[in-house]
Amino acid sequence: MARKPDWVIEKERARRTGAAETLWLFGLHAVRDALSNPQREKLRLVVTKNAADRLAEAIAASGIAPEISDARRFAAPLDPGAVHQGAALEVRPRDWGRLEELCTGCPGARVVLLDRVTDPHNVGAILRSAEVFGAEAVIAPQRHSAPETGALAKTASGALERQPYLRVPNLARTMAALRGLGYTLLGLDGAADMPLDAALAEVGERPAGFVLGAEGPGLRQLTRENCDRLVRIPAAGGFGSLNVSNAAAVALYAGREEARA
Amino acid sequence: MARKPDWVIEKERARRTGAAETLWLFGLHAVRDALSNPQREKLRLVVTKNAADRLAEAIAASGIAPEISDARRFAAPLDPGAVHQGAALEVRPRDWGRLEELCTGCPGARVVLLDRVTDPHNVGAILRSAEVFGAEAVIAPQRHSAPETGALAKTASGALERQPYLRVPNLARTMAALRGLGYTLLGLDGAADMPLDAALAEVGERPAGFVLGAEGPGLRQLTRENCDRLVRIPAAGGFGSLNVSNAAAVALYAGREEARA
Repeated sequence: MARKPDWVIEKERARRTGAAETLWLFGLHAVRDALSNPQREKLRLVVTKNAADRLAEAIAASGIAPEISDARRFAAPLDPGAVHQGAALEVRPRDWGRLEELCTGCPGARVVLLDRVTDPHNVGAILRSAEVFGAEAVIAPQRHSAPETGALAKTASGALERQPYLRVPNLARTMAALRGLGYTLLGLDGAADMPLDAALAEVGERPAGFVLGAEGPGLRQLTRENCDRLVRIPAAGGFGSLNVSNAAAVALYAGREEARA
Repeated sequence: MARKPDWVIEKERARRTGAAETLWLFGLHAVRDALSNPQREKLRLVVTKNAADRLAEAIAASGIAPEISDARRFAAPLDPGAVHQGAALEVRPRDWGRLEELCTGCPGARVVLLDRVTDPHNVGAILRSAEVFGAEAVIAPQRHSAPETGALAKTASGALERQPYLRVPNLARTMAALRGLGYTLLGLDGAADMPLDAALAEVGERPAGFVLGAEGPGLRQLTRENCDRLVRIPAAGGFGSLNVSNAAAVALYAGREEARA
């Protein structure tokens, strides 16, 4: 049997490390979504009496035994500012499996790659759009990106339970792997010549990935070099720029329309 | 001469009241954008020595005399958490003029109406998308919407200087006025039957408005009744929902494409 490539070994090691970590989800909505998710490994549920009543159905279905806690001395180790609404659930990060399993390369397949997008508000919104428009995965580097936390789960409004959010050791190598799997990678860059719709017309229903950088710095040099095309979202005015999650939503919408056309 | 309708009188009164108020913009980016904007009425500029150096060109061009302040006892009345980077500028809210002047009803004209969207992150992102896609205005009720503040200016990343953000006393009456001006109003509602693209094909390059509600409650009953059509953004999955600013960006992008087609 052939030796596994270095990047696979590196990723599996990172995944084993990651599996040892846990996170606390909080808020009625996020906790209910996670309790109702059979794929989510649940460790501890801390709830006030009131929250236990409101979550009664989801708690019963999940089979986990709740620890009832006083609202004023809430027993879960949350940040002081966390709006927990009396509900917190310790869970393991989802194991989304291998890139090759998630990214099937089937007709119309779409993925989103984030180059150092760290704001959980933006990543949460992108996970929601990815779910709505049926993207196979949102992929980000393990370092310099928004980690899977309770705060991210809250802004993702349930999408973190269902939408694969794959964090990889090295974005450039993952991009190369995706291209090997047949994906065309379109890097979004306001200064590019090619309009998004022209690139998508070229791609048609072949698998494609949208690569977005952080606001300000944009795509790093190595990330740009690993894109097949740099494209811009066609815009009327010369001024202004889109918020990164808004740019991702537009690309996913346009990519979905093209795949259907 | 005919008597002005009540809603015009009410709006003009509200505008006069509004004109007495001021706001503090903060952060190097927001202050530079406002200093460079001849339409922005500037009252006081408070800067550290360091920020004064970095803004030297914009300050000189604006003609305003800076008050140099110590970073540790910064003389501008900002919230304790405001990341001011040593720069704060007191300004008057922009006076965007009358609805009929902003909304010309010319071919391809687009506006965005927000029904109680209060999160400044979302409204800031929507102002950016509106600017990029050339919408005539973003319209929101005076109450229960994100006010023009330094925090909103920061998330709008310059768009608040240039993109009309019109706050009106009564959204339903403004919707009626827009319909009188020839606008077709499309209310975004995830449960609607009609897909956005079908509605836009019907609208073509006639003027149109996109109406979006707050996440959770959605559009209020009276707002829904004032829409010509309720439409949904076509989506692959049955689960999930878009963040409101992402939905606005998709609608503006799709609406622009249709106007060009």
